[in-house]
Amino acid sequence: AEVVVSPPFVFLPLVKTTLRPDFHVAAQNCWVKNGGAYTGEVSAEMLVNLDIPWVILGHSERRSLLKESNDVAYALAKGLKVIACVGETLEQREAGSTMEVVAAQTKAIAERVTDWTNVVLAYEPVWAIGTGKVATPAQAQEVHSELRDWLQANTSPEIASTTRIIYGGNILLL
Amino acid sequence: AEVVVSPPFVFLPLVKTTLRPDFHVAAQNCWVKNGGAYTGEVSAEMLVNLDIPWVILGHSERRSLLKESNDVAYALAKGLKVIACVGETLEQREAGSTMEVVAAQTKAIAERVTDWTNVVLAYEPVWAIGTGKVATPAQAQEVHSELRDWLQANTSPEIASTTRIIYGGNILLL
Repeated sequence: AEVVVSPPFVFLPLVKTTLRPDFHVAAQNCWVKNGGAYTGEVSAEMLVNLDIPWVILGHSERRSLLKESNDVAYALAKGLKVIACVGETLEQREAGSTMEVVAAQTKAIAERVTDWTNVVLAYEPVWAIGTGKVATPAQAQEVHSELRDWLQANTSPEIASTTRIIYGGNILLL
Repeated sequence: AEVVVSPPFVFLPLVKTTLRPDFHVAAQNCWVKNGGAYTGEVSAEMLVNLDIPWVILGHSERRSLLKESNDVAYALAKGLKVIACVGETLEQREAGSTMEVVAAQTKAIAERVTDWTNVVLAYEPVWAIGTGKVATPAQAQEVHSELRDWLQANTSPEIASTTRIIYGGNILLL
């Protein structure tokens, strides 16, 4: 297993130098547009410059960046590995549209990404993060399974079988 | 004169340890609300923890945070010094409402801040930052002067005479 730790920006250099060498760091987010001056943002280029290998994009606590599917592609093009987050809100889950939402988010990524080697899909249900609510292992596994089916149907058997799908959210172990 | 350098978050620790000791660092922004998990944000508390003395709040390239006047107060309360940015858009300048806008932004700060010792006001006209347009020294000085008058009329003579007002934007030196 690969272990990736994602501290806030300001702690990234320290954590990177302190971690055991087989553990890696990820930025919690980055600016995925070209050029310009965006005070307060950290760009994909800066992360590469600092030799930060990973970035999380579209974390549920941030605005849903995933509609901008080229975000993931942009970060990949700069040489970052991307943990791309997908997940539904409570409203969407209760309306029974979980897979529809998650598939649309994944499709937005798949439209721009051909090489999935450096992409990890993270299922992060918005309702189970920072809310006190928890997903059961069965709930997470069900979506993981459907995500893999989606990849199988819409990308390639190889991408479907090799892309890592992780869960990011509260969980209740019974 | 006091020199403060404000690199992106990920470079703050390095710049802080590399700068000559009489120069200080500022974060370009921070999260100024209490508690919670906000992946991708850097909190005022983290900056204090890292011994970062300054933060810029409300930089023109960010959403106008200054309506949330307690931002500045919150950061001050945590022990940070704050460079608080005010400034009008091009539309507002052309409509002749520059001072009205800037006064309202400063008022929002003044309503929550009583001790101005650790506040620097930065006049940052939105139209002169990252746009290629420049303010003349006279334009900047005029607003600075009016800002100082505003402080005189609305805070105290001491605050008006001692608070530093700086310009942050493109400039054309003739």
